[in-house]
Amino acid sequence: MFSQISFEDKFVTSFIGISEYERLTPYVEQAHHWLHQKEGAGRDALGWLYAPCDDDITELRAIERAAARVRAQAEAFVVIGIGGSYTGTRAALNFLQPHFYNQLARTRKGAPEIYFVGHHLNTAYLEQLIEVLQGKEVSINVISKSGTTMEPALAFRFMRQWMEKKYGKEKARERIYITTDGNRGPLRRLAEEEGYDSFTIPADIGGRYSVLTPVGLFPMAVSGISIRDVLAGARTAYHAYQHPRLAENECYRYAGIRHLLYQKGKSVEVLAYYNPSFQMFAEWWKQLFGESGGKDNKGILPVTAQYTTDLHSIGQYIQEGLRTLFETVLYVNKAESSLCVAAEKENRDQLNYLTGSTLEDVNEQAFKGTVLAHTDGGVPNLIIRMPKLNAEIFGQLVYFFQKACALNGYLMGVNPFDQGGVEAYKKNMFALLGRPGYNHTKQQLLQRF
Amino acid sequence: MFSQISFEDKFVTSFIGISEYERLTPYVEQAHHWLHQKEGAGRDALGWLYAPCDDDITELRAIERAAARVRAQAEAFVVIGIGGSYTGTRAALNFLQPHFYNQLARTRKGAPEIYFVGHHLNTAYLEQLIEVLQGKEVSINVISKSGTTMEPALAFRFMRQWMEKKYGKEKARERIYITTDGNRGPLRRLAEEEGYDSFTIPADIGGRYSVLTPVGLFPMAVSGISIRDVLAGARTAYHAYQHPRLAENECYRYAGIRHLLYQKGKSVEVLAYYNPSFQMFAEWWKQLFGESGGKDNKGILPVTAQYTTDLHSIGQYIQEGLRTLFETVLYVNKAESSLCVAAEKENRDQLNYLTGSTLEDVNEQAFKGTVLAHTDGGVPNLIIRMPKLNAEIFGQLVYFFQKACALNGYLMGVNPFDQGGVEAYKKNMFALLGRPGYNHTKQQLLQRF
Repeated sequence: MFSQISFEDKFVTSFIGISEYERLTPYVEQAHHWLHQKEGAGRDALGWLYAPCDDDITELRAIERAAARVRAQAEAFVVIGIGGSYTGTRAALNFLQPHFYNQLARTRKGAPEIYFVGHHLNTAYLEQLIEVLQGKEVSINVISKSGTTMEPALAFRFMRQWMEKKYGKEKARERIYITTDGNRGPLRRLAEEEGYDSFTIPADIGGRYSVLTPVGLFPMAVSGISIRDVLAGARTAYHAYQHPRLAENECYRYAGIRHLLYQKGKSVEVLAYYNPSFQMFAEWWKQLFGESGGKDNKGILPVTAQYTTDLHSIGQYIQEGLRTLFETVLYVNKAESSLCVAAEKENRDQLNYLTGSTLEDVNEQAFKGTVLAHTDGGVPNLIIRMPKLNAEIFGQLVYFFQKACALNGYLMGVNPFDQGGVEAYKKNMFALLGRPGYNHTKQQLLQRF
Repeated sequence: MFSQISFEDKFVTSFIGISEYERLTPYVEQAHHWLHQKEGAGRDALGWLYAPCDDDITELRAIERAAARVRAQAEAFVVIGIGGSYTGTRAALNFLQPHFYNQLARTRKGAPEIYFVGHHLNTAYLEQLIEVLQGKEVSINVISKSGTTMEPALAFRFMRQWMEKKYGKEKARERIYITTDGNRGPLRRLAEEEGYDSFTIPADIGGRYSVLTPVGLFPMAVSGISIRDVLAGARTAYHAYQHPRLAENECYRYAGIRHLLYQKGKSVEVLAYYNPSFQMFAEWWKQLFGESGGKDNKGILPVTAQYTTDLHSIGQYIQEGLRTLFETVLYVNKAESSLCVAAEKENRDQLNYLTGSTLEDVNEQAFKGTVLAHTDGGVPNLIIRMPKLNAEIFGQLVYFFQKACALNGYLMGVNPFDQGGVEAYKKNMFALLGRPGYNHTKQQLLQRF
């Protein structure tokens, strides 16, 4: 099976020699072996690797049934989650649904408005969300594997009370959906005790690798996205990217070139995209690579840029700033479009030479012109192309990056599935909040602030 | 006059010695002198420095009158701009208006919905915007100093034709507002020939320093923001940050510490914020510092992070990744809030110890805990605090960063007011688009792609 996405590395040839590729090859094969034989670090977190090939569609049907119920019962659907329980879903909706989705008439989208909460700690946002929800039929989905993450737990406390006040405890029960661990944690207990509909996050899939589990699939289905197409795309990618050799595997080529560029001092990767539908996908990518690779005082810093927007912002830095950057460019091959530049008699803006061109024609030349200019400026450019934005390609792209991220982690000598560093601030925060058992530390911290 | 924002540098004391501050002092005084005496690089682009003290309120009244007309005539207001003609306005609206602003009832906000276009090249976005505008009364504002920037020029061609089709040429004339150079360029000519209402971008203020000119002020006023308060804030900041000595000037302390940290290898600055209303402000900041400082193969890379959201994303990298980072943290001192965590009998999530706390209480401890954790992890933290988010403080903060950016540019030995690097991709793009006069280059470029 062939992936519809393609990876091009011809604009790094002036930065990386052929012999460097060749010397990398056995390391890639070793990393591939660790990954597929479950012999590397984090081997208990590899569920995402084979999940798209799982033939069991019982849970898939349950997701689709629940989604149909939400579409029938709700005018607004509130998704509560943070980190890996948040970015992937937003990425899918941004990638596959129209801009201004929430403002489209219900008859146009045939699905509820979708809102997010529990991804920060801000009362004004929560109150303003409640204002928007007034008078609407609402369903909610809380997503948290542990069930104890602070932000979604607090938002869910609030939203559940709000729902029970609005609908009464009995009726609210039919509108609350839980996505959490299969056996453990407060949300699993709650679902069992209250009889809420619930979905399981597999034990062997970590947050940032979980968008193709019920974490992302249920909200996607609510919005009307074909989750079978998404999974079919991931399955295609599974097959397309399983060859152990660097030369035969574009996913590994991306991972390997990242590694070589880092060794040459290119410590910042800019994920640049020429279509605003990638905005939240880029945020998902940032978490995936930042959390997986940023440890042991090393790692590539993942940064994002929307073009052509940010060519008028961070573009100057990329062209002429500190030469520690490389770019990975997401590009959707030119879409057909009926909207062309029309001639103007006066031609005051002198753009008549573009008469008959579409915005995408101009975008394509901006893309090509920028790749060449940045490469000439000392910024290696990698290109990932796809023919369009659809559910299948979303699945392919997610899988491509997840596997590249895991392989790159092994090349870098880190565990791409843990995130020990995020405990440092949490420990301080719990102490400062007076969580039982932290008293001594609290005094020490307060003295420093 | 005292600024309401405060700058704290106590969490960099373990990274920078007192003697380093002292050695920096004369350089800061020299840079201050160049700035205020107009003797430095880009001395013809310093209009923003004294603009808030301008006593002429004729244009201010014209802006307010036009804004009142738009509020009366339009249900939707479309702002067309990119770069400095875009990010500042979005920053102000995000900072000062509620989330979900466009979805609030008109009676609630007393102002039109506000949309942006011309900041990228995407037909789907434009078509979906047009769908949202159907059936609504619309006014538009195109913002472009040169009048020839590709993205807004194309969007304006399209929107003007759409408006003339909707309203007829005569009626459309009352709904088209132009913000451009006072004398030159196609938009100035168009405004004169068609009799459109127009505003002037001062010749001595560049795009990224222009949010406090009609560029930002007119759309702000349309949304109901008090632009007199915004300008009063900038005026306060003008007075608060005019002392030439490092020790007496918090704005210069920020600029100076950035410079010292860069010299020690901290080449990435993360602007982190704990309130989602800063999201677009951070984008504005990114352009300001990226375009001003990223040149001559040097400069601090500006990056943004929304907390606590991104503590579950890029937080791992910041805590334990490559130690090339420092953070500047925007923090709004704890707001009063009536929304408290309520006790739950079952206490399944074990959060009852927070009963009676607000989300802002938790946010504050997340902020303190993170500053300490990141500092301990080797990431110097600078803190910029403010008591609340209002128009005056927006003006202060904009001025604080503009002046710090200019001063920092002089310390770094670059011209903080030019952006020569952005011509490189434009030259390629124009050639590839077949703009008259570029034929030879086009063939060369096509061979490489």
